[in-house]
Amino acid sequence: MEATEYMTGELCDGTTPYCKFKENEGKVISIKGAIHNIRDMSDFAFIILRTARELIQCVYSPEFSDYRMAENVVEQASAKITGKVVKSQTRDGSERFEIQIHNIEILSVPAAIPPVVISKKKVNCDLNVDLDYRPVTMRNPAERAVFKIQEGIQRGFREYLSKNGFTEIHTPKINFAGAEGGTNVFKLDYFGKTVFLAQSPQLYKQALVPVYERVFEIGPVFRAEHHDTSRHLNEYISMDFEMGFIDSFTDIMEMETGVLKYIMELLKTEYAPEVELLKVDIPAIDKIPCIRFKDAKQLCVKKLKNITDMKDFEPEEEAFLGKWAKQQYGSDFLFVTHYLSKKRPFYTMDDPEDPEVTLSFDLLFRGIEITSGGQRIHDYNMQVEKMKRLGMNPEEFETYLMLHKYGAPPHGGLGLGLERLTMHLLGFKNVRYAAMFPRDINRVTP
Amino acid sequence: MEATEYMTGELCDGTTPYCKFKENEGKVISIKGAIHNIRDMSDFAFIILRTARELIQCVYSPEFSDYRMAENVVEQASAKITGKVVKSQTRDGSERFEIQIHNIEILSVPAAIPPVVISKKKVNCDLNVDLDYRPVTMRNPAERAVFKIQEGIQRGFREYLSKNGFTEIHTPKINFAGAEGGTNVFKLDYFGKTVFLAQSPQLYKQALVPVYERVFEIGPVFRAEHHDTSRHLNEYISMDFEMGFIDSFTDIMEMETGVLKYIMELLKTEYAPEVELLKVDIPAIDKIPCIRFKDAKQLCVKKLKNITDMKDFEPEEEAFLGKWAKQQYGSDFLFVTHYLSKKRPFYTMDDPEDPEVTLSFDLLFRGIEITSGGQRIHDYNMQVEKMKRLGMNPEEFETYLMLHKYGAPPHGGLGLGLERLTMHLLGFKNVRYAAMFPRDINRVTP
Repeated sequence: MEATEYMTGELCDGTTPYCKFKENEGKVISIKGAIHNIRDMSDFAFIILRTARELIQCVYSPEFSDYRMAENVVEQASAKITGKVVKSQTRDGSERFEIQIHNIEILSVPAAIPPVVISKKKVNCDLNVDLDYRPVTMRNPAERAVFKIQEGIQRGFREYLSKNGFTEIHTPKINFAGAEGGTNVFKLDYFGKTVFLAQSPQLYKQALVPVYERVFEIGPVFRAEHHDTSRHLNEYISMDFEMGFIDSFTDIMEMETGVLKYIMELLKTEYAPEVELLKVDIPAIDKIPCIRFKDAKQLCVKKLKNITDMKDFEPEEEAFLGKWAKQQYGSDFLFVTHYLSKKRPFYTMDDPEDPEVTLSFDLLFRGIEITSGGQRIHDYNMQVEKMKRLGMNPEEFETYLMLHKYGAPPHGGLGLGLERLTMHLLGFKNVRYAAMFPRDINRVTP
Repeated sequence: MEATEYMTGELCDGTTPYCKFKENEGKVISIKGAIHNIRDMSDFAFIILRTARELIQCVYSPEFSDYRMAENVVEQASAKITGKVVKSQTRDGSERFEIQIHNIEILSVPAAIPPVVISKKKVNCDLNVDLDYRPVTMRNPAERAVFKIQEGIQRGFREYLSKNGFTEIHTPKINFAGAEGGTNVFKLDYFGKTVFLAQSPQLYKQALVPVYERVFEIGPVFRAEHHDTSRHLNEYISMDFEMGFIDSFTDIMEMETGVLKYIMELLKTEYAPEVELLKVDIPAIDKIPCIRFKDAKQLCVKKLKNITDMKDFEPEEEAFLGKWAKQQYGSDFLFVTHYLSKKRPFYTMDDPEDPEVTLSFDLLFRGIEITSGGQRIHDYNMQVEKMKRLGMNPEEFETYLMLHKYGAPPHGGLGLGLERLTMHLLGFKNVRYAAMFPRDINRVTP
């Protein structure tokens, strides 16, 4: 018995990507894609082929097409088009190339016409209809560009941290306890036991600091919050990092500043087609100003009316602070530091100079919070005491406390919601535009 | 009100990584890490400092140490050590560097001695004890090396596919239906509705083929299988890809071959310290032989006794085929193709030349299956008919079938379990050694 075939890892289907059109001008090449749009001009026709990132204009004309237009040449059919690469006429004088069709080979045909029009610049329908038909509406170039940019954001986060000595981790989503206490967690029957879906990788990423010093994770988290707002999702992608051997909690803010600079640069270069298509206003990041919570609060009290909650910010105050940072420092970002101890989670390090406040921060982007982070308690006795003070039972956190008990370096970290950052970068009013298949209190489909 | 501080993304703590020791020979530098081991030799002492990827030997001696050894210099304490870089004496004559300690600054101290010894070459305890104390046992260099290599595997998968035009996706883990039908799924109460945890990103990754042509995902999947074996986990990391516009299902096998070659090369270069520490036998991949299921079955029947199931393989048969591939072709890998139609999922494309078999494959690695993949049905009517033939109700798959109804190119893909590949690459007998925090029918902690 002999193996008749071998796989070598070589793969070539003979097609030519658009980026190679210029060097193939005048030559006959093949491309594959979906027929995105057909415009019949009576004596000739434009067939717009949709590839992974481009729309390629192909021209059908009896002048140079041997092929006879057939019934199965329809929108959403998959096709292989062979023809000559020629420079196309563009209104703005930019250099573009098109294909003079010699032949069309149809690879598959749809069974029905899409229920929403996806070949226009934008999908013009109600958000709920859009979401109901996401497998179809995402074929629209503007819609898919959103999630290509989202890919760029998480890729930038990963690449920058990897270059800076971080190890990528994947921690379990089935947890025996909720990270931030018992509320807002989804419960699950697990072979007769009640377990929880991870609200955050917090406890695991901290546990791995004495192992790898610096770790990050990009993965789903689940929050059973009963909110029906434009900002909440019940499942989202959290980008988390945690770093050990910090000298100050500002080390975490410096690292985040580096991450954000890298992401924005990556989007401008590697994601230029999508940035241009969506006219994304990429923020310039030079240096990010920092202000203490209590100073920021004073600013708000001075400029805004009816401020009653002195312990936290209302969205209105964050919006004001965002404008202030832009006017005063020309910055789209603002770090607010030293939040009140009673408003931060049990693992947050209090400021030794003022235990009422913490070594923590939020990052505002254009007036909206996109990150919470800070230094964590690394000393065992300090953590146990804080838990007791907060009415928690340290015995329930035995495995978590192994971290502190058996030695942990000074450390801290942060979490950054991928959909929320995408939303604010693209200027959406609703986070659902920035989630491929959003999960909210009313929606678990498609 | 003025911001008093700015973040610029610059971060430098003044320490010198081990890779820069050579160029700093004879100079006084600082390093930070955990005290991994102390060996007191009466008139001098070795302090082994554990950094993210190294163990660094530091020598304490009254001859050159101003510092007086204090009580808090204990194992698992975090420390900053300052001293002179000198060439060390090694038995094998290789070039290594150590630190002559001038000063030790203790950054944090543990509250207790670890319950298991982690400073030896290996953690010598029962698997269950090891897992109970994972936050501690993973500090052992051999143990953490396992998951550093695991990082390398998933990184190689991602990098190779990204270079080949794939888009990274993150699809929802809260699903309205199980991908492979209703069995073995975890159920969840979702605001009064019953929903499921994703068994696979199958239906989503297929839906995104007409959008991005090529997509991949690295993320958790959940299987409520009631098995208690050395091979099963109830939550694991699945590496999935799906590619459109294929000419044949072998395109998927070629892509996987390319992925595996890239991963192994990456491990040999970027993960050399861990590969060396664990003495990993990295397989050489030149070309991977392919054999049809029915031919492989004949081989097994000829050579093995008591083969009764003619529709699938027993583990014993896979082991035999693995040895056969090694002897016959010198290959650690073997593709087995054309599995029986009744043994593959509903979305698998049947072979037009023989509808009893499918355009599918498994990949065996050293005689154990690590991948299942194949071409999917892209035609709407073909998929609806196959569903009906299998007794499924197409109406329950309405959103899934949008893919086919509104046009999909010929496509296919595969899934690869990260823990299982790690397990077999490292030669473990139990998959739990290759899962940081395994989830099985008896374990959801830590």
